[in-house]
Amino acid sequence: MTRNIDLNSDLGEGYGAWTMGDDATMLGIVSSANVACGFHAGDPLTILATVREAAARGVAVGAHVSYPDRVGFGRRPMDVTHAELVADVIYQIGALQGICASAGTRVRYVKPHGALYNTIAVDPKQGAAVIEGIRAVDPALAMMGLAGTQILRQAAEARLPTIAEAFADRAYRPDGQLVSRREAGAVLHDPEAVAARMLRLATEGEIEAADGSTLRLRADSICVHGDSPGAVAMAARIREALLAGGIAIAPATGGAA
Amino acid sequence: MTRNIDLNSDLGEGYGAWTMGDDATMLGIVSSANVACGFHAGDPLTILATVREAAARGVAVGAHVSYPDRVGFGRRPMDVTHAELVADVIYQIGALQGICASAGTRVRYVKPHGALYNTIAVDPKQGAAVIEGIRAVDPALAMMGLAGTQILRQAAEARLPTIAEAFADRAYRPDGQLVSRREAGAVLHDPEAVAARMLRLATEGEIEAADGSTLRLRADSICVHGDSPGAVAMAARIREALLAGGIAIAPATGGAA
Amino acid sequence: MTRNIDLNSDLGEGYGAWTMGDDATMLGIVSSANVACGFHAGDPLTILATVREAAARGVAVGAHVSYPDRVGFGRRPMDVTHAELVADVIYQIGALQGICASAGTRVRYVKPHGALYNTIAVDPKQGAAVIEGIRAVDPALAMMGLAGTQILRQAAEARLPTIAEAFADRAYRPDGQLVSRREAGAVLHDPEAVAARMLRLATEGEIEAADGSTLRLRADSICVHGDSPGAVAMAARIREALLAGGIAIAPATGGAA
Amino acid sequence: MTRNIDLNSDLGEGYGAWTMGDDATMLGIVSSANVACGFHAGDPLTILATVREAAARGVAVGAHVSYPDRVGFGRRPMDVTHAELVADVIYQIGALQGICASAGTRVRYVKPHGALYNTIAVDPKQGAAVIEGIRAVDPALAMMGLAGTQILRQAAEARLPTIAEAFADRAYRPDGQLVSRREAGAVLHDPEAVAARMLRLATEGEIEAADGSTLRLRADSICVHGDSPGAVAMAARIREALLAGGIAIAPATGGAA
Repeated sequence: MTRNIDLNSDLGEGYGAWTMGDDATMLGIVSSANVACGFHAGDPLTILATVREAAARGVAVGAHVSYPDRVGFGRRPMDVTHAELVADVIYQIGALQGICASAGTRVRYVKPHGALYNTIAVDPKQGAAVIEGIRAVDPALAMMGLAGTQILRQAAEARLPTIAEAFADRAYRPDGQLVSRREAGAVLHDPEAVAARMLRLATEGEIEAADGSTLRLRADSICVHGDSPGAVAMAARIREALLAGGIAIAPATGGAA
Repeated sequence: MTRNIDLNSDLGEGYGAWTMGDDATMLGIVSSANVACGFHAGDPLTILATVREAAARGVAVGAHVSYPDRVGFGRRPMDVTHAELVADVIYQIGALQGICASAGTRVRYVKPHGALYNTIAVDPKQGAAVIEGIRAVDPALAMMGLAGTQILRQAAEARLPTIAEAFADRAYRPDGQLVSRREAGAVLHDPEAVAARMLRLATEGEIEAADGSTLRLRADSICVHGDSPGAVAMAARIREALLAGGIAIAPATGGAA
Repeated sequence: MTRNIDLNSDLGEGYGAWTMGDDATMLGIVSSANVACGFHAGDPLTILATVREAAARGVAVGAHVSYPDRVGFGRRPMDVTHAELVADVIYQIGALQGICASAGTRVRYVKPHGALYNTIAVDPKQGAAVIEGIRAVDPALAMMGLAGTQILRQAAEARLPTIAEAFADRAYRPDGQLVSRREAGAVLHDPEAVAARMLRLATEGEIEAADGSTLRLRADSICVHGDSPGAVAMAARIREALLAGGIAIAPATGGAA
Repeated sequence: MTRNIDLNSDLGEGYGAWTMGDDATMLGIVSSANVACGFHAGDPLTILATVREAAARGVAVGAHVSYPDRVGFGRRPMDVTHAELVADVIYQIGALQGICASAGTRVRYVKPHGALYNTIAVDPKQGAAVIEGIRAVDPALAMMGLAGTQILRQAAEARLPTIAEAFADRAYRPDGQLVSRREAGAVLHDPEAVAARMLRLATEGEIEAADGSTLRLRADSICVHGDSPGAVAMAARIREALLAGGIAIAPATGGAA
């Protein structure tokens, strides 16, 4: 029996005349595209072009919802109210659903972006607002979040399908959390080593932590980046290693609620 | 057999801390709400509150799509490209559809706003982009436009349902066009006279032009305003006169394509 | 010898088609206008009209700088970086200086708005960024802040002139802090009582705290509101009471650094 | 006696996380930087970094003012009112002046951007608004515009200093206008040929038109681009050829009004 894993990446993050990342190449590597919805990045034309290309290549589309902070690229924590966050999530999913409908595809999951992603990994209050927003539009949409964090449990308790993701290029602590970017060694740069790590994760459900210990980690999806030529090359290498290792790369279906 | 007519108004046009118009009262008067989609007005929370209230009162929801010009309230002509306009229309409809889904209702029609409304009444190029955007999301959505203008013919040719609207408080030229706002007498202020005009329009399909001649006009909907206490009072008077005259007030269904 | 006090209010907080507050009336009441700079409110045309009217009436102009959060009206705490905040402050002061130059007046002080105001009252890190931004443009600009809070000490240490303000309609704790808006009695509604409080503050430097004790408070300026008819009436009553009590109402000069 | 010419380029056109062009290299090539002011591009931090680097290298700073259209990069004609455009110009110049003050330099000239640039080359109505805005802030600021167009005459009549610019990489018609980008041959790609053209323009005041005829053209400045590696290389080649030909590259002083 073949094992599956999903490869996902943040795409559609240009804005008007500005571009970001090599979306065209990445859409040939990943099975799922986290598409910006206009709040941190993505104007309608950029989003539409990204979604059309994703649809043409059979790549699943997720809503990469964010705080409303374009100049800060959604990377700055914001103390929004529950009602604001619920409405912002609904609006962004809806906008992307409209774009998807026009391109003959649909939104399958929601992956919060940047500071919102980090916040809901630890803050059940904002997490509850995101979940309420998703459920209000369509309770069949899956929540994608960091493997091992509270948002996945919270989403599952709310009967949302969940997709647990691992970061290909990040070091893990023995407790399953990411090593902070402020610490040395937080980001991994060797494509071969990273590809081997991800193959081990996909086949054995294990990853080596920063202290050399072995960490069990269930991941439905692996997040890869496309914002530099080096990142694209690493993503391609991961894909190659997974396929060579007998792993099928396919969109995550979302664990049963 | 009872005649029907629709009463529509522009609603949800606040933005964050700013309000505009008396939406709560107007939702008790009209049968259709043209709800801002965020490009000229309307933040997600304001839009959501408006749509929930519309749903609770059985008022039909239309997407009041606009050029992306919040500071200009969508009132300034913009020379956008075809592709930009198509994508902007899709995005806005989708966002409102998401909000409607969360509120248990749906988008029934699209009414372009402000400068875009005026442009497509005479410009088939931008008109074609709006039509393409609507059809891409859902070809069952109706196009609401000014009675007698090219956009309704263009939409019908593209097999979109259409809703022709008349403006309650505007004077008409004998050729069926509106008297320009730059001319004296363009805007009517007497609620009784306006209510009588609209009743005649609804029952006989006739309206008195500015030169005293009689004009034949087919209107499925009447546009009323809620942006001042006087405007709200006029809208209420029109509703009252129509009901007293045996006209049922109900959402337009959209003429067959 | 006549005592002076300044009356200040937040003005120019419309945006495009949206208005907020009764600026015209308030400019006849206050001696200082905290003018929005475009980040939480205020488009160039609104700002220009406000500044022109302030100049015509001899009302001093201050820069009401904010986080970049128009949809949240600058009321939501944001975790911006030091460099971002410095640049945001510089940009906003400069924009208002340009407007002031065109209107024959000048910016005299800076009063941070909303969440930024509250944050720097307690957070020296963001406070340092605001101070650095002000000094970079013009170290003769005064910092207006809440009487008794750390930002005024921090600004004075950085050799900025300072203006300590009291809130006319807010209850004070015995330790000089404001009673939280979440508590009952935080906001005062009786114009007569408030006017008497402010006269006592201006003449004796004392204010009655929420527990009935007497609090010594040095205030160079009193903040009044214009966002409702009741608020405008209260502001007018305070002005009247101060004048009747022999207090001159005039812009604060900024305490020596 | 040495002849001078100015080399100018559009810089500071990133926005938040998005970059555009190779500003660092271009600041080593040009003598004048047209710096975005936030309306089509440029957030405060990007603008500040650009202006600091310009100041450090002795590059003159101009305000690259635009319509308020970030998603359209200021490239879409907008039918703004006179009052709106005056205020928008004032605000943008002021913001950049604040940034310049903080960096120890100053704004020397104003070059409208994109669609606004093209519009005022032919439309005296919007041209008058831009001129009014500039004069309101500081009548010593020069207007930079396309050599031979009405805006330079209009600005001179209003006693603004003027800077006439030529485009290095564009073909000219025999009447002095640019060949439209819609026509073949509108944009020149050979760095050697372009450098030779610009040297001839700087030394003899002549340029070969698209039909082979000789065109007299007075240009105080040459506009070069930095938005691609090829563009940067061409700009460097032009600089080299001018210097080798005995032309000094220095900021334009602005023709007497």
